[in-house]
Formats: sequence, structure tokens, C-alpha cells
Amino acid sequence: MSERAIPEGRSDYRAFRTITTRWMDNDAYGHVNNVVYYSYFDTAVNQHLIEAGWLDIASGSVIGLVVETQCRYFSPLAFPDPVTAGIRVARTGTSSVRYEIALFRGASETASAQGHFVHVYVERANGRPVPLPDDLKRALAPLMV
Amino acid sequence: MSERAIPEGRSDYRAFRTITTRWMDNDAYGHVNNVVYYSYFDTAVNQHLIEAGWLDIASGSVIGLVVETQCRYFSPLAFPDPVTAGIRVARTGTSSVRYEIALFRGASETASAQGHFVHVYVERANGRPVPLPDDLKRALAPLMV
Amino acid sequence: MSERAIPEGRSDYRAFRTITTRWMDNDAYGHVNNVVYYSYFDTAVNQHLIEAGWLDIASGSVIGLVVETQCRYFSPLAFPDPVTAGIRVARTGTSSVRYEIALFRGASETASAQGHFVHVYVERANGRPVPLPDDLKRALAPLMV
Amino acid sequence: MSERAIPEGRSDYRAFRTITTRWMDNDAYGHVNNVVYYSYFDTAVNQHLIEAGWLDIASGSVIGLVVETQCRYFSPLAFPDPVTAGIRVARTGTSSVRYEIALFRGASETASAQGHFVHVYVERANGRPVPLPDDLKRALAPLMV
Repeated sequence: MSERAIPEGRSDYRAFRTITTRWMDNDAYGHVNNVVYYSYFDTAVNQHLIEAGWLDIASGSVIGLVVETQCRYFSPLAFPDPVTAGIRVARTGTSSVRYEIALFRGASETASAQGHFVHVYVERANGRPVPLPDDLKRALAPLMV
Repeated sequence: MSERAIPEGRSDYRAFRTITTRWMDNDAYGHVNNVVYYSYFDTAVNQHLIEAGWLDIASGSVIGLVVETQCRYFSPLAFPDPVTAGIRVARTGTSSVRYEIALFRGASETASAQGHFVHVYVERANGRPVPLPDDLKRALAPLMV
Repeated sequence: MSERAIPEGRSDYRAFRTITTRWMDNDAYGHVNNVVYYSYFDTAVNQHLIEAGWLDIASGSVIGLVVETQCRYFSPLAFPDPVTAGIRVARTGTSSVRYEIALFRGASETASAQGHFVHVYVERANGRPVPLPDDLKRALAPLMV
Repeated sequence: MSERAIPEGRSDYRAFRTITTRWMDNDAYGHVNNVVYYSYFDTAVNQHLIEAGWLDIASGSVIGLVVETQCRYFSPLAFPDPVTAGIRVARTGTSSVRYEIALFRGASETASAQGHFVHVYVERANGRPVPLPDDLKRALAPLMV
């Protein structure tokens, strides 16, 4: 059905953000809905970029647009357990970055889910791709594998 | 337009839960959307009930149904700042509990928003209100004002 | 616990918007989560303002900030049933509008939930309240009761 | 960065569901957040299964668990424009189905985004994969390509 993926461990990732789950994350089957995993991806990566001093949501002249996302689900997450997102950068192109993210439930060492998303960096004013700015590259450096 | 409300402080509340905000909580105006505040209310109260050993989402025989919610918004919340929810119980009826919640941005001592929600406790099997169970009363005791 | 509210009918409202429910709207108890009702409120009112030609999300100089919301829940909504939101304007102040909204499940004539939200209209640039613009008043006229 | 994908047209899909967008779907950049696209996928597929008479969320003995999702984003969606989801089944395995979904903005003939998700069908009671039930196969027949 799709290439087999193996759950990774925390040591395969470079930076971590803990995210609290919410009551409404659980769907009618009692676990975090598959959609919500992507909000954890988005949050972990953007929070890293903000804390690393690069991303200014309201007024930065360059922003990241998401062009591709993917997730594989190995075992359920559920409220009220917190989730830790591990992130790394697998590849960078002229204007793009491929972030890879794993989600760990509570204190688990093995990922419950793994995925990626690809940002293309563009001028906010006109949407045109730009070469990765130097200060973004510095913010990404600790994530590189 | 509505009775004037005064932002309260942390000392007006009895228990606290810290909630991480998410990228998508911010709406087109750049702040946490008014809807999302209620997911913080819901999460803080249910997490208290779970950690106090009362609520079993999957199989408890008694569950809380929400019959009324309200929120007043004083100043914006925004990703990436965490939010702390203060909770207290203002009143209990035969089958119902009025929870009051305030949301504090980051380390702020003054509430950004305040509101309440009313739970009616019912048999899961048939939806009929039941007198508040003793173990629920024990879980609520530390929240009473 | 709170003043008793009586479910109203469609004829008590002035304009209607149909909203499709989503799989993830249903929470662990199998019905639309109480939080999501407010996203229907928000959507119905803003969609009216956009279609009436007043609201320009990206560049209008005046925007509505939400200062208070409330909802009472009478009977459950659930995916996959569509919801129709009935809206009316109960009162206007110098800078504020109180919208009242009822949510009808499928073809039901009786509201499943009722509530309101209060918008204060402000300059986008500095957040200061402004008198209701004339073109906003025209957009509200068909909603007045 | 990733294999190039070409936006497809409506005729490449077999069934359609129209989904209304919501105010809060738009994120801080003014377009539907990348996460929300997956809620449209989930909704379109499950709604098809319900309307085709197969899926009973509350009490069916077999349920679909999501094991993989992916989306490519070509052009933005935004509230208040409705979205039409086109769906098809690309492949079925013993216990699994690969659904492919495209999202069309308003009346557009060209997809704004395309993706897939893979369901593994399991016994609700014990989570074990089961061969695709015959009534599910009948519900899928009109989606096959």
C-alpha cells in the first residue's frame, strides 16, 4: 500500500517541543484525530523558527508556504497525554526546506507518528520564491542532519 | 451591550493548567480566534477531572454534558505564547456544576479572558441527569470558592 | 444555574447560512464538541458581512473584534448532518453590534443551540473603536429585529 | 525536493462532496491552513461511506483507522469560498483502501490540492485488521478507478 516505515527514536531528531493535547483533539473513536497531528508539526517547526529569532509572523518580509505534507501513524496519541515533537531538517533547496517531524506520546522513546513538511520561502508581498535568507540558515543549523 | 466585567487575577482561581498554543490558533487577524478559547476551557476542566481520578473518557458511567458556555475577551492571546487556565467552581446544583475559568497569557497576572461553562452530569447510557457522584464531589473540592 | 432559555424557531431569525459539519467536529462522546458551535457562529456572521459587501478580511480599514460570546445547548448536533445558522441583530451601540445566532440541525425547525456574540468595530491600524460605518449599517439592516 | 505533481481536474475523480469553509480555517497568512485540508479529506471520505450505507460511527463493528496521509498544495483555498472534494479509490489491499482526494476551490476545474489517505479496516473491539467486508466493497465500487 505504501513503503513500509519504521518508528524512530528521540535520538534521531535534533530539537524538541512539548505540546499539550486538548479535549477536542480526540475524535469519535477516542484518539487524537489524524488531522490534528499536522497542527503539531506546524506548531513545532514555526515555534522553533520564532524562538531562533527568525520568524516574525506579523511583519517578516519572507514567509514559508507549505507545499507538501505527509504523516505515517504507528500508534495512537490521546488527550490528556502531552506530545513531544522531535524535528530535524533533512534537506534544503534553493528556496525550500524539508522538515521531518516525529511525535512521541508522553515519555515514550518510540515515535507514535512520523512525517514531513516542505516549506518554500517566498516574499510575503508577491509570493515569489527567494533564496533561503542567511538568518534562516542560521536558525536551521541546529536542526540539520 | 452587556454587564461590565473586570479582569481578575490568578489568586481568584484555585487550580491551574498550562496549555501550549498552536500556529493555527491564530486567525486571519493574527491572534487566537475567539472560538479556540473554549477549547482551553474544556481542556483545563476535563484535565483536572482526569488527574483528580474522576473522569474516565472511554468508560465512565457518568459523563458531563455542556449546557451553557460564555466568555469575555479583554486582551488578545497569540501563538507562540503559552496560556495558563485558572479554574474554580462557583456553584453546584443537584446534577450540575458551574466552572469558571480565566486565561492568562504567558506570565501575566491579569486575565486576558474570563468565562464559565456549566456541566450537567448524566448517565452515559441514557443521558438522564444524576445526582453528583461522591467521587466527583471529592475531585471538585479543591476548586470550590 | 442560569436563566432558563427556550429553543426558538427559524422564523425568529432574519438570515440563514448552511454549514457542513466535519468528521472531526464530533468529539469523544460522538457529538459536535461544544467549542465548534462558536465556529459556526463566527462563520455565519462574517459570511453575511462579506456577501453583503461590507467585510474585506485582508484589507478593510475597520474590523470587528469579538468581546463577548455565549451559547446555550439544547440538543446535540452531529456529523454528518448539516447545520443551518439563523442570524439576527438584537442591538447596536455606537461601535458595537450584538449578533444572535441559532443553530438548526438538518431540516429541524427548532434550534439545537442559541447564543450571541458582540463585535466592537475598530480601526485595524490602531485598534480604536469607531462609530459603525454607514456601509456596515446597510449590511446589518436586513438582520435587525 | 519531492516528485513533481500535476494538478488534476474534476473528471479524474468519481464522487464529490461540497464542504463549506469557516472563518477560523484561515490562518495568520489569510488562507486555509495546511492542516485543515486533511479535515476536508476525512470528511469527504467518511461522508461517502455513511451515505453509501456502510459506516455507522457509533456502533459499526468494523472501523477504518488512518495509517498514512499526504497532501500537495498547488494554490490557496480561503474562506468564504466553498470547497469541493473529489474522491476516488486507487487501490485496495486485503484490509486496506487507498483513497485519493482533490480539493477544488469554488467552481474551479483544476485542483488546488491533491492527496491521499490509507485506511486499514479493523475490528472495533480489538483493533485487528479484517478482510474488507462485502458491504464496504459495494460502497467503494462507484469510487474505483
